Amino acid sequence: MPENVSANNPSSVVVGIDFGTLSGRAVAVRVSDGAELGTAVHHYEHGVISERLPGSAERLPPDTALQSPEDYREVLRRAVPKALAAGGIDPARVIGVGIDFTACTVLPATVGGTPLCELPGLAGRPHAYPKLWKHHAAQPEADLVNAVARERGEPWLARYGGRISSEWQFAKALQVLREDPELYDRADRWIEAADWIVWQLCGSETRNVCTAGYKGIHQDGAWPSRDYLAALDPRFADFVADKLAHPLSQLGGRAGGLTAEAAAWTGLPEGTAVAVGNVDAHVTAAAAQTVAPGQMLAVMGTSTCHVMNSDVLADVPGMCGVVRDGIVPGLWGYEAGQSGVGDIFGWFADTHTPAGYADEAAERGVSVHELLSAKAAEEPVGGHGLVALDWHSGNRSVLVDHDLSGVIAGMTLATRPEEVYRALVEATAFGTRTIVAAFEDSGVPVTDFTVAGGLVRNPFVMQIYADVLRRPLNAIGSDQGPAVGAAIHAAVAAGAHPDIHAASRAMGEVRRGAFRPDPTRADAYDELYAIYTDLHDHFGRGGSDALHRLRRIRNEAAAS
Amino acid sequence: MPENVSANNPSSVVVGIDFGTLSGRAVAVRVSDGAELGTAVHHYEHGVISERLPGSAERLPPDTALQSPEDYREVLRRAVPKALAAGGIDPARVIGVGIDFTACTVLPATVGGTPLCELPGLAGRPHAYPKLWKHHAAQPEADLVNAVARERGEPWLARYGGRISSEWQFAKALQVLREDPELYDRADRWIEAADWIVWQLCGSETRNVCTAGYKGIHQDGAWPSRDYLAALDPRFADFVADKLAHPLSQLGGRAGGLTAEAAAWTGLPEGTAVAVGNVDAHVTAAAAQTVAPGQMLAVMGTSTCHVMNSDVLADVPGMCGVVRDGIVPGLWGYEAGQSGVGDIFGWFADTHTPAGYADEAAERGVSVHELLSAKAAEEPVGGHGLVALDWHSGNRSVLVDHDLSGVIAGMTLATRPEEVYRALVEATAFGTRTIVAAFEDSGVPVTDFTVAGGLVRNPFVMQIYADVLRRPLNAIGSDQGPAVGAAIHAAVAAGAHPDIHAASRAMGEVRRGAFRPDPTRADAYDELYAIYTDLHDHFGRGGSDALHRLRRIRNEAAAS
Repeated sequence: MPENVSANNPSSVVVGIDFGTLSGRAVAVRVSDGAELGTAVHHYEHGVISERLPGSAERLPPDTALQSPEDYREVLRRAVPKALAAGGIDPARVIGVGIDFTACTVLPATVGGTPLCELPGLAGRPHAYPKLWKHHAAQPEADLVNAVARERGEPWLARYGGRISSEWQFAKALQVLREDPELYDRADRWIEAADWIVWQLCGSETRNVCTAGYKGIHQDGAWPSRDYLAALDPRFADFVADKLAHPLSQLGGRAGGLTAEAAAWTGLPEGTAVAVGNVDAHVTAAAAQTVAPGQMLAVMGTSTCHVMNSDVLADVPGMCGVVRDGIVPGLWGYEAGQSGVGDIFGWFADTHTPAGYADEAAERGVSVHELLSAKAAEEPVGGHGLVALDWHSGNRSVLVDHDLSGVIAGMTLATRPEEVYRALVEATAFGTRTIVAAFEDSGVPVTDFTVAGGLVRNPFVMQIYADVLRRPLNAIGSDQGPAVGAAIHAAVAAGAHPDIHAASRAMGEVRRGAFRPDPTRADAYDELYAIYTDLHDHFGRGGSDALHRLRRIRNEAAAS
Repeated sequence: MPENVSANNPSSVVVGIDFGTLSGRAVAVRVSDGAELGTAVHHYEHGVISERLPGSAERLPPDTALQSPEDYREVLRRAVPKALAAGGIDPARVIGVGIDFTACTVLPATVGGTPLCELPGLAGRPHAYPKLWKHHAAQPEADLVNAVARERGEPWLARYGGRISSEWQFAKALQVLREDPELYDRADRWIEAADWIVWQLCGSETRNVCTAGYKGIHQDGAWPSRDYLAALDPRFADFVADKLAHPLSQLGGRAGGLTAEAAAWTGLPEGTAVAVGNVDAHVTAAAAQTVAPGQMLAVMGTSTCHVMNSDVLADVPGMCGVVRDGIVPGLWGYEAGQSGVGDIFGWFADTHTPAGYADEAAERGVSVHELLSAKAAEEPVGGHGLVALDWHSGNRSVLVDHDLSGVIAGMTLATRPEEVYRALVEATAFGTRTIVAAFEDSGVPVTDFTVAGGLVRNPFVMQIYADVLRRPLNAIGSDQGPAVGAAIHAAVAAGAHPDIHAASRAMGEVRRGAFRPDPTRADAYDELYAIYTDLHDHFGRGGSDALHRLRRIRNEAAAS
């Protein structure tokens, strides 16, 4: 390695690659100060596969959400060279590459790392494809995972707020076993896409401590026991041993060096350090300088993920998980989440906004979202008379129930689209407040609150969050937090900084107090939040099983 | 009167005039067989006045719904001559004119019948205008009317299902008194628009037994006592004596003869018999041949009104009212209602249907309603996973609470507009089923069910109603039931038929079993109806006060 591309050279560059729900983004970042030198995005050709498999006319079951692994490889081939070109960067300056991924996005693969959907004859089998995080069809399996764990008193259950999600590795794997056992048998590996893409980059399998802890069930150095797995299904007894178990790698570690093939895809030098895989939200903590205990980071996009380090270990009801070393080595990493946020706003803007609004937005030269936000911002808090439950994509925290669904109450014949839109935004803010309250009520202090993700650019949404949370919001400095976070991890893996804390200080950026609550609006929101809490508890905690009955009826109708 | 225009001449004609929410319609009908010879519609220039008074920039309070009396007169001037011209009818053949009106639509007037809003200097006072049936701002007054009646054990309260509506004469008058006492004092009369327009036609004040019973509080020959009124507000003690009391006229009776002025407006002969005023839904019973005991008629348009004669007197919880002679002389007339039906579908189609749908409807050459219906009809029952509460305009029966509002539960990111549209249609059908159940549970048999009104022409809506109600639906033969019903009453008033029963047999028309339930779909709807009932009772019967709190917060926000 020539002197000018060494880890200590301030002009050295790292590449972070963020694999999102609909696209992948590569960012080239200077290791000395985090300057973002070049960026490029590649949209997945197949996006989210929820209606039909590629080339198939058959309708997929409800709540299915799959992806194509080749779409991920295309990000390496297209976005990485483009990002370097955009920054005018000589690839020889690049000393490391890091990735982050949506999670739990998980796939069945061969022992060599080939996704089963790429094997001859398996392209028509839905269970051969990666299951995207928002694949919500494994709720019956999650129910079983939880029931058996409760019955057996499994000690790890409390580390997940008392519930394993249908979004995670075990429920999704069990769904494959129960619905396509032959395909299940052909899977040598059940692997997070984060680890799979690292495998594609460096040619050897690694498993990161973060997804093993949060999306798998790895706690205190162990996986769920063979007895437990057998109790779920005798055929599942060796799931961990056969398909999952592998030495775990610490975050910021070096997974390996770029293979010749991956070097050819990306245009980077063969042997470039590849960081251990990571998750989009968790990796963003480094970019937002929120790696100290009590600093909650909300990464707000299609969904929201809350991550926070703490030196306290506690059982927070309905959290997604607490994992030792899960965000940075040496601390307890907490995760919570909301499974639909920007997705819900997008759904409403796309499917429930009338033609006149589209015309008006076009005339004003703004997006429909901007138009709805502008119209909604004019009204006083509560002027719409609405409260919504933000469960259009289920509830990840604190109820951990993906069979829940959205509710809107208070509509009249005078209700306008921007009012419903605003109520949906507010509902997601109430959801966040519910999560913060769950942490604080459990003895895990939330000392400050930082926002990242695409929604940070929407001041209408941010002001509502500040008012609802009654807290100032810090805002990440970068528009591409996950990719920058991945790059920070790459810099650590390449040895440019001694650890994630140091790299975060050097390369991350945050604007403190970017959005401040208005006390009058905050008081008004307290009243609406109380109504939200009533509806939340009624529909979510057993007062009414209406939403579950509707889901069952819907699924039966779809199946008939 | 020449021989060829006598009551017994089969070529004699009567004119029925239906004053609706947005327009008035005149129909010329042959007395011998009900043949509709000519029709014309006139749209009110001011429609529903809910945002600002004509010529004013000031925003009206929420839930305000006013109208302009001159718009009503314009119907006489324009629609009546047009209807005759359309039928090529010599006005000399016309032997009677009858009207029906929305109700309770009520106005303050002078002793001479001049609406207060037409007096110099009062055009800027909202309370000087007619309050349309769906003016829902008098809920606090209705609450007081009910509380005091319950406290004093007023015997008439049970005749109204236990609740007087904010839509009716007393609550609306009390709102005027409390919010604009000076204007209240200037009103010599507080009169139903139905009676007011008859006054305009024949020059003398009459009060029909129907609105006095259903929209006023006239029972067993008496009005509420002076003591009761004083308990509401000392200034209200003489409300009945001063502004309301007047001899009541039986339905089908003759109110008087056309004045010279009204003859000039309408082009009809001076002295033509004018029938006693009536209400749109009630008068339709004659046109639909549903005047026998147990025949429930649902008049389905922007709202739905259910009317039914019975020889049984019972207290049906939450009915709008039971009035002796209220639909036809000699029977107990029951009324129930849903304050939002077609209005709700219209609200959704207008404000929540995306641009792409408008384009698709235009391409197919259908309305947005037809497009939504066609798309929704393809899905199996329950396939949308939704249940809605149809309270966007409050609940008239069986809860009698206009501070309630709409709810939709079960939305996901896959929910499409046609699915919400269908859920709203279904919600109104569930609301109807709730009303039918309340009658039958109270010992008032509903032996058959007939539908009338604009929605009868929508087979998608009708099939849902047949399936939800698990009953065959008869359909009125005429597209203009209220106007034909008013014409039938005119024929009785003119002496062409001995009574409403005979006139209905000769001039009305019904298609029996026009829509028949499908047992499989009906079974599936039973499950959704059970969920509707759960939500209905939770939000409507005290399980949750969320909707009332939202209404209060909304009103306070609007006022601040």
